[in-house]
Amino acid sequence: MNLIDTQRAKLLYSRMGPAIEASGGSAGNTAAGVASFGGRAAFFGKVSNDALGEIYAHDIHAQGVAFDTKPLKGGPPTARSMIFVTPDGERSMNTYLGACVELGPEDVEADKASGAKVTYFEGYLWDPPRAKEAIRQTAKLAHAAGREVSMTLSDSFCVDRYRDEFLELMRSGTVDIVFANSHEIKALYQTSSFDEALAQIRKDCRIAAVTRSEKGSVIVRGDETVVIKATAIEELVDTTGAGDLYAAGFLHGYTQGRDLKTCGDLGSLAAGLVIQQIGPRPRQNLRREAEQAGLTIPDVQTSSGLPSRCAGYLARSAITE
Amino acid sequence: MNLIDTQRAKLLYSRMGPAIEASGGSAGNTAAGVASFGGRAAFFGKVSNDALGEIYAHDIHAQGVAFDTKPLKGGPPTARSMIFVTPDGERSMNTYLGACVELGPEDVEADKASGAKVTYFEGYLWDPPRAKEAIRQTAKLAHAAGREVSMTLSDSFCVDRYRDEFLELMRSGTVDIVFANSHEIKALYQTSSFDEALAQIRKDCRIAAVTRSEKGSVIVRGDETVVIKATAIEELVDTTGAGDLYAAGFLHGYTQGRDLKTCGDLGSLAAGLVIQQIGPRPRQNLRREAEQAGLTIPDVQTSSGLPSRCAGYLARSAITE
Repeated sequence: MNLIDTQRAKLLYSRMGPAIEASGGSAGNTAAGVASFGGRAAFFGKVSNDALGEIYAHDIHAQGVAFDTKPLKGGPPTARSMIFVTPDGERSMNTYLGACVELGPEDVEADKASGAKVTYFEGYLWDPPRAKEAIRQTAKLAHAAGREVSMTLSDSFCVDRYRDEFLELMRSGTVDIVFANSHEIKALYQTSSFDEALAQIRKDCRIAAVTRSEKGSVIVRGDETVVIKATAIEELVDTTGAGDLYAAGFLHGYTQGRDLKTCGDLGSLAAGLVIQQIGPRPRQNLRREAEQAGLTIPDVQTSSGLPSRCAGYLARSAITE
Repeated sequence: MNLIDTQRAKLLYSRMGPAIEASGGSAGNTAAGVASFGGRAAFFGKVSNDALGEIYAHDIHAQGVAFDTKPLKGGPPTARSMIFVTPDGERSMNTYLGACVELGPEDVEADKASGAKVTYFEGYLWDPPRAKEAIRQTAKLAHAAGREVSMTLSDSFCVDRYRDEFLELMRSGTVDIVFANSHEIKALYQTSSFDEALAQIRKDCRIAAVTRSEKGSVIVRGDETVVIKATAIEELVDTTGAGDLYAAGFLHGYTQGRDLKTCGDLGSLAAGLVIQQIGPRPRQNLRREAEQAGLTIPDVQTSSGLPSRCAGYLARSAITE
């Protein structure tokens, strides 16, 4: 993922092929996934008072996610990411943060931060200046209410930028559950050995769920290790959203009190669906998909969910040649 | 297809599920398809000077279509259609015409109208008030230059609204080539018999290409009849754009001087691809697809193309339950 400014965004868009627009943003995708599973989710994120911001709010509301952050008026436009997808499904993201940089502590809704079983935030949010204050405040409210806090390391370059701060978040107990992929944990511990990185992260947080693309995922909690298979797919179309939807499945299972194996299987299910389509949020009803896979319990409506914090933005995807 | 006003558009959008946005519009899809085949295409259509209008212009330019119609300033916003797609691939369209209604004779670019081998327009354009003047003017310029004019009947309700005018366009020779589906020609001649309708349309225009969903298509020219098979598909996802892309393949072949059988096969190829994805324009490179299917000639770059007239708009698709 590259961060780009207005000028670069204009240049890239002028060179981009025909595209489709879809709501995206890492934690927003996760919140949408949780809601699609039938869980309750709330989202804090900053869009602008413009056409893309309205579309963003529509989509997340229509998915059943509570989203009440006031849109920005008169500032930069709603964020967007230009995503180039290769024919073999890999993608590069070029993100213009726009209104996202204005997300701050004043956007924290205390009742949601205290009320959710798990709060989830993106490592990406260490980029805009004031979001980290908002996150620390949310984490305080959550822990004061006996809740848990989770984060995704987001991106190995992001880890390189904020390694010490991320480790501090984990070691201080500000974060209980960490989501990452194998590249990110290797970057975090500056090692080329996955096993070495896994041994280290085991000590630094209560639970770590580490995805490994087609190899599935590994969940560690203290001495416990749970190995999860990737779900079989027909065709890899676009990996955008894979990690976000893995987190959605995991967190939905986790807030339902399911065992780690089931949490991981729900994550694999959702990730496997989103990578077989263009765009970062699966079009299927995940609750139904989970039922068909034998992964649900009868009444998921009783769960409380997670507020996930993210700067809302629209993903714009084009197939590259 | 239903035409809706601003109030109804707001209501429907508030009840619509999470959606994706993609450029659409019948003739715009056809122009994009011709360009994707490697043909030269130009497009006249009215968008507004807003975010959706910019996306629309980006997408059609990025596809290689000439599009120079001035965007509307200060009037209604860029048109949009809310498309609800059922799990079995059928769709209903709810179209807010917005800036489209301002398309008029002043938007006709004489050099393009005279220079293109075939001009193509939508029957839909009989809805906005001034577009039909623009079409008649384009047809005059085209015929004066020895070119041909084609149209699509668009929709059987549209045929019901403008039956006499459409028949007059055909019988007066204003239109040489007609695209339609079986419902539309039956509506045109107010008969329940496809064979009866086909016998009548044979007399009323020089060429008619009539699509029949999974039964393929039938092309008639005088006494000649060419039967075209539908291409085999893996999964029907969304029929939006099927007729538009059939016309794209047909017109690309036709402007290349190919026989009617090949024109129809190119139409089937493009239609078969677009219905296996969400959205009205195929993401594949159609030239490459045609090459792989053995349907291209070595140098397609020598063709002149078609200006297709349409009110540009953004299609917004959501899966319904």
